[in-house]
Amino acid sequence: MPDLGALFSPRSVAVIGASPDATIIRGRTLKVLLQHGFAGRIYPVSRSHAVVQGLPAFPSVADLPECPDLALLVIPAASVADELERCGAAGVKAALVLASGFAEDASASGPAMQTKVRDIARKYGMAVCGPNSEGFANLPARLCPTFSPVIEEAQGSLTGEKASGRIAVVSQSGGIGFAFFDRGRPRRIPFSHVITTGNEAALECFDVVEYLLDEQSADVFVLFLETIRNAETFRRVAAKALAAGKPIVAVKIGASEAGRRAAASHTAALVGAAEVYRAMFRRYGITEATDIEQVLDIAAVFAACRDRLPRGKRVGIVTASGGAGGWLADACSAAGLEVPELDAPTRKNIDAHIPSYGTSQNPVDCTAQAVRQLGYSGLASLVADSERVDSVIVVTSARSSETFERDRENLARLARKSSKPVVLWSYSQPAEASVRIAAEAGLPLLVNLQNCAKAVAALAQY
Amino acid sequence: MPDLGALFSPRSVAVIGASPDATIIRGRTLKVLLQHGFAGRIYPVSRSHAVVQGLPAFPSVADLPECPDLALLVIPAASVADELERCGAAGVKAALVLASGFAEDASASGPAMQTKVRDIARKYGMAVCGPNSEGFANLPARLCPTFSPVIEEAQGSLTGEKASGRIAVVSQSGGIGFAFFDRGRPRRIPFSHVITTGNEAALECFDVVEYLLDEQSADVFVLFLETIRNAETFRRVAAKALAAGKPIVAVKIGASEAGRRAAASHTAALVGAAEVYRAMFRRYGITEATDIEQVLDIAAVFAACRDRLPRGKRVGIVTASGGAGGWLADACSAAGLEVPELDAPTRKNIDAHIPSYGTSQNPVDCTAQAVRQLGYSGLASLVADSERVDSVIVVTSARSSETFERDRENLARLARKSSKPVVLWSYSQPAEASVRIAAEAGLPLLVNLQNCAKAVAALAQY
Repeated sequence: MPDLGALFSPRSVAVIGASPDATIIRGRTLKVLLQHGFAGRIYPVSRSHAVVQGLPAFPSVADLPECPDLALLVIPAASVADELERCGAAGVKAALVLASGFAEDASASGPAMQTKVRDIARKYGMAVCGPNSEGFANLPARLCPTFSPVIEEAQGSLTGEKASGRIAVVSQSGGIGFAFFDRGRPRRIPFSHVITTGNEAALECFDVVEYLLDEQSADVFVLFLETIRNAETFRRVAAKALAAGKPIVAVKIGASEAGRRAAASHTAALVGAAEVYRAMFRRYGITEATDIEQVLDIAAVFAACRDRLPRGKRVGIVTASGGAGGWLADACSAAGLEVPELDAPTRKNIDAHIPSYGTSQNPVDCTAQAVRQLGYSGLASLVADSERVDSVIVVTSARSSETFERDRENLARLARKSSKPVVLWSYSQPAEASVRIAAEAGLPLLVNLQNCAKAVAALAQY
Repeated sequence: MPDLGALFSPRSVAVIGASPDATIIRGRTLKVLLQHGFAGRIYPVSRSHAVVQGLPAFPSVADLPECPDLALLVIPAASVADELERCGAAGVKAALVLASGFAEDASASGPAMQTKVRDIARKYGMAVCGPNSEGFANLPARLCPTFSPVIEEAQGSLTGEKASGRIAVVSQSGGIGFAFFDRGRPRRIPFSHVITTGNEAALECFDVVEYLLDEQSADVFVLFLETIRNAETFRRVAAKALAAGKPIVAVKIGASEAGRRAAASHTAALVGAAEVYRAMFRRYGITEATDIEQVLDIAAVFAACRDRLPRGKRVGIVTASGGAGGWLADACSAAGLEVPELDAPTRKNIDAHIPSYGTSQNPVDCTAQAVRQLGYSGLASLVADSERVDSVIVVTSARSSETFERDRENLARLARKSSKPVVLWSYSQPAEASVRIAAEAGLPLLVNLQNCAKAVAALAQY
């Protein structure tokens, strides 16, 4: 197996084709690589410039002061094979190819060029990612060889809160791969990697997952798949992830005729029957998801709760809005969960805190007054103590952060100590401060109630 | 029928129980009523204060300088019946009752008090909303008799962009009713009313919808229902809405045993079988939705496109991200839409603008280059021109507003002139400026791809 450590955790990176002009991809990619604080060495390779973006440049990879771990190829498709050959000959262990126009361009010489890329990778035992990749981001290492505008424009910490496990995204689509990160960031969902594999001439998605399982910084995997190229690798790696207790949340496109057409022209993927994939996913405990937010919601709940999986399907719901509680109860039932009436001792405990127009049955409609008195944490604890309940969903109105502020320490303590999963759902638009407090505590805060039910059901099924 | 105009568009409002202390509900409700610029007359009624929040107060409703159209009762449950009687005797035409502790509190005298409320309303022919209501907002009139924190904290214009039709929310749950507004506001979705009907002792949801149909400021209705109390009224009003071409998007909770328990203890609703409701909804063209965002997405698409309903189920998809296009195609197919290959003349037109590694088949994978050249509007027009397509979904990355800025006028022209619905989906997190430009143009911008497919399918089915 080629050295994927050289690809995803290199100490040195050559940027072949680097340009001083940051408005074009050849320049933008170097700019992005420089801007996030990667601690390794970066070498621009340019035939026409001696200095590129403030760094000394070299005419070819053979002229570099050291043999780089990773060669980042930002050159046109037609030049890729020759350059890759030069890299291999120079002893470069890994390459990332961003250019389009390979197997997805059936009208031209693309497919033949892609075969060449694969053959050169094999000949030299190089770890080659792409072509037609949007690059990747190793976030803890601040290594971002990509032209993704999401990474280009990202401000501040790239890794999110550390109170829960970290998510690695591995995607055959560049746009969608980085979109998971983009949509997760304002929610402070913690990511370890975003890796986009493109046409997968050599390395494929599950090779990458296997490397990340060994590397250990990721706790949950999000996969966006147009195809699975090698069923054997899939089975081995999926079994390994399951054995390691690292959940996989996957999107597999191509269920429709039009979706298959799109995949073929996009990353040259030949997709198989949806039912076959579904059965394989079920067998290895992989949760399928259908929308970007749903993927993130399920992955965030796994990241927070994978070390306290529920023993069964029974959910306790606590709410100050009767309508919201009833709606969520319906969603939980539809997702295959149970919402049983609570036991008498638990109800007695709860009844001591709520007015007579509330109810302790389940959903526990505790009214706003009890939220003020006990906080979301206190109410969640009362319900979690019931033997009739395997996990708890707390209905919140996170638009006001006051309740969260007041409850901050208790929420964090609850997340640390609870042996049962606790998930927050907000029916109102969460304030930034509420999002921050929940993330710092390590409690997932969702706004989509169907996803909330589905995520807790996925925990129960895993 | 009582005068619902006096209730929802009063010229004068008495606030019975108004307090100077804005930290309690009796004071907060008056504060909210004063803060949004309602042009009518407001009279605090207080036994203990001569001036309340800067306004002269009166000891009873009979002492007011005029008989008010609407009496807003912010007093405890036990005092409501007597006060309502006084209002009726004084000739007040409408009342809103916020107190809890009526039929939803089966342990006490609540049910009997609720019967009294109903009887007094009938006796005087008063339009009575509640009890256990969170109040309402008539947004164009800036009339907000409610203690909802959503309305209390709302800054700036309450009505959203006017480029598309307006949405009226009628909800039996206060928290959820105002949550639709709260979640729709940052998206600039235009609302006309949010009305929460609580226990519905006298007026019920469909009475309110009927009034709003006659009143005409709403174009689309969002309903949150725990129960339908009167099947006859439902049928009459649903048929009237359908005949007027004003779509209804409804959530009906109580499909599960736990959901039914919650509804009973919340607004004393006895809910019927889900299948029966579903059949009734289908018959009257009512679209059912399952999550807050899904409700808003479908309603926003109806608000923008109800005057250009698609002739069939065939969707054209245009995208610069192959993965996103394929995923959306799958979602459209799953929602019952068709994504046919485009005709040869249309493909030829499109092919002139895209590189060979793109494709014009459908989804049209046009690549980022074509987006820069033609804008989303130009690409949407090319696809909309095809005879094989009844509506168009444009996949965007709205995190950058540049493309939207450049395309602003053309997007607005497209929304005005297109005879087919055009809907935007963004896989990345939309920038505020993108949201504003789309809203000003009158084009719905969604971030959930399943909702996007479902909304276009709902248009096609309506």
